[in-house]
Amino acid sequence: MSLKAFEERLSERQTKTRSLLCVGLDPDWELMPDSLKRDSVEDGLVRFCNAIVEATADQACAFKLNFAFFERHGSVGWRALERIVDFIPKGAVTVADAKRGDIGNTARAYAAAVFDNLRFDACTVSPYMGVDSVAPFLRYPDRAVFVLTRTSNPSADDFQNDRDERGRPLFLRVGERCVDWMNQYPGTVGLVVGATRPESIELLRHTCPTLPFLVPGVGKQGGNIDHVLQASGTRPGLVLVNSSRSVLYASRGDDFAQAARTEATRLKAILSPT
Amino acid sequence: MSLKAFEERLSERQTKTRSLLCVGLDPDWELMPDSLKRDSVEDGLVRFCNAIVEATADQACAFKLNFAFFERHGSVGWRALERIVDFIPKGAVTVADAKRGDIGNTARAYAAAVFDNLRFDACTVSPYMGVDSVAPFLRYPDRAVFVLTRTSNPSADDFQNDRDERGRPLFLRVGERCVDWMNQYPGTVGLVVGATRPESIELLRHTCPTLPFLVPGVGKQGGNIDHVLQASGTRPGLVLVNSSRSVLYASRGDDFAQAARTEATRLKAILSPT
Repeated sequence: MSLKAFEERLSERQTKTRSLLCVGLDPDWELMPDSLKRDSVEDGLVRFCNAIVEATADQACAFKLNFAFFERHGSVGWRALERIVDFIPKGAVTVADAKRGDIGNTARAYAAAVFDNLRFDACTVSPYMGVDSVAPFLRYPDRAVFVLTRTSNPSADDFQNDRDERGRPLFLRVGERCVDWMNQYPGTVGLVVGATRPESIELLRHTCPTLPFLVPGVGKQGGNIDHVLQASGTRPGLVLVNSSRSVLYASRGDDFAQAARTEATRLKAILSPT
Repeated sequence: MSLKAFEERLSERQTKTRSLLCVGLDPDWELMPDSLKRDSVEDGLVRFCNAIVEATADQACAFKLNFAFFERHGSVGWRALERIVDFIPKGAVTVADAKRGDIGNTARAYAAAVFDNLRFDACTVSPYMGVDSVAPFLRYPDRAVFVLTRTSNPSADDFQNDRDERGRPLFLRVGERCVDWMNQYPGTVGLVVGATRPESIELLRHTCPTLPFLVPGVGKQGGNIDHVLQASGTRPGLVLVNSSRSVLYASRGDDFAQAARTEATRLKAILSPT
């Protein structure tokens, strides 16, 4: 059996769901409904996330799990993460938002953790250490990495916008390397590009015309969806727009899943592929 | 009770043990003695690492746990990690080699995972997203971050050596920022600087005269210890030289702990503070 490339699966899923929305699972214990906190932490996390998955699965093409909010609870949180990944419907694209990055033999172990054990379709990685830290993930022909390129946070400019001697900012050099890596390895390379920087999305789309973009930062972080879509393109397979907090905490009460569905439905309507 | 700063504790421990050696716990299941694989994975990892800790604790000032080799085994690996951290003698400095880096609220969760739950003294972090991703770790006055600055792997030059318009390489700009961050936040900032690049260690020591350096890459990766020490300085509190594989796998048989002790003793002799 030959394996389908990630971008093909993503494209098919986006066409089928008519949605570019990725729902981010960042279960913040403080913000979860009180009724879920009577169980063990593990069960509380699982019940919360699984209810969100169930309520939004037909509105979203993908789910992104933010590892920090599981690791926060140690091995108990990791057990919850394992159970939630298992619960996500088979067709949905899954992204491990772990932002890993280390030397070759260590990166191989991280890739085994997210791709062999947890069976994620994609993982976010950091570019700082160069291709050695990305290549082990790209040896999986049917998976993807999303390389941190232009992030949505206020201090992104500490280094990402530094110009080289030819005047090119660091984030654009990362984008250029990602194109090289895409050509060199069997797996798929995508970019993480923050919604708060549409002008960077446009520049990067010019440099990387076919690479999938994972775009966090709409909703709570203030990114404008229209600007994002205009810059990234809306054909299936080109962009995943992530929303975490605005969906997860649409209500802090026992109607959280229903409120999440309402918000995901609203987002899907403005996040349609063309 | 006022908390001792990290650099003070490190300095005291290095003086007491007469050692700058940090033993890296990267338990690679393939390389571990067969006799330990008859137990569960969790127990195998714990027995292996705890035996190494016991055999080398008086030869080393610190232990560094590489999270990838635990995550490789999922929640079972995380349980092992929790048990091993608990087993390390109280006086030894502990480093979470996790290379995390994310936006503010996520970085807070990662910091809580390693500092509140696991009680590590220090954590490695990536600088790519800027100060937002580092500051949550620096709110702990008695802990430290080691910021990836100049790494030991072959592709470190993909970005770290890129010059800006003033001719300064990226890794040096990271070092400069680390000095700023050290002055702005209560926690301690250190740098990860690979042993394979003594000329970079020298440059960074000039820029960051008092920041502690965590230096991986001696042993299997080929870094020269004399060059490292000459460039970093050898006063207590200035440098931690990490060795993982040469200690852990000094023997692949049942005498692995004894062989690790012999190798750690040999390393300690050439890694003395002055």
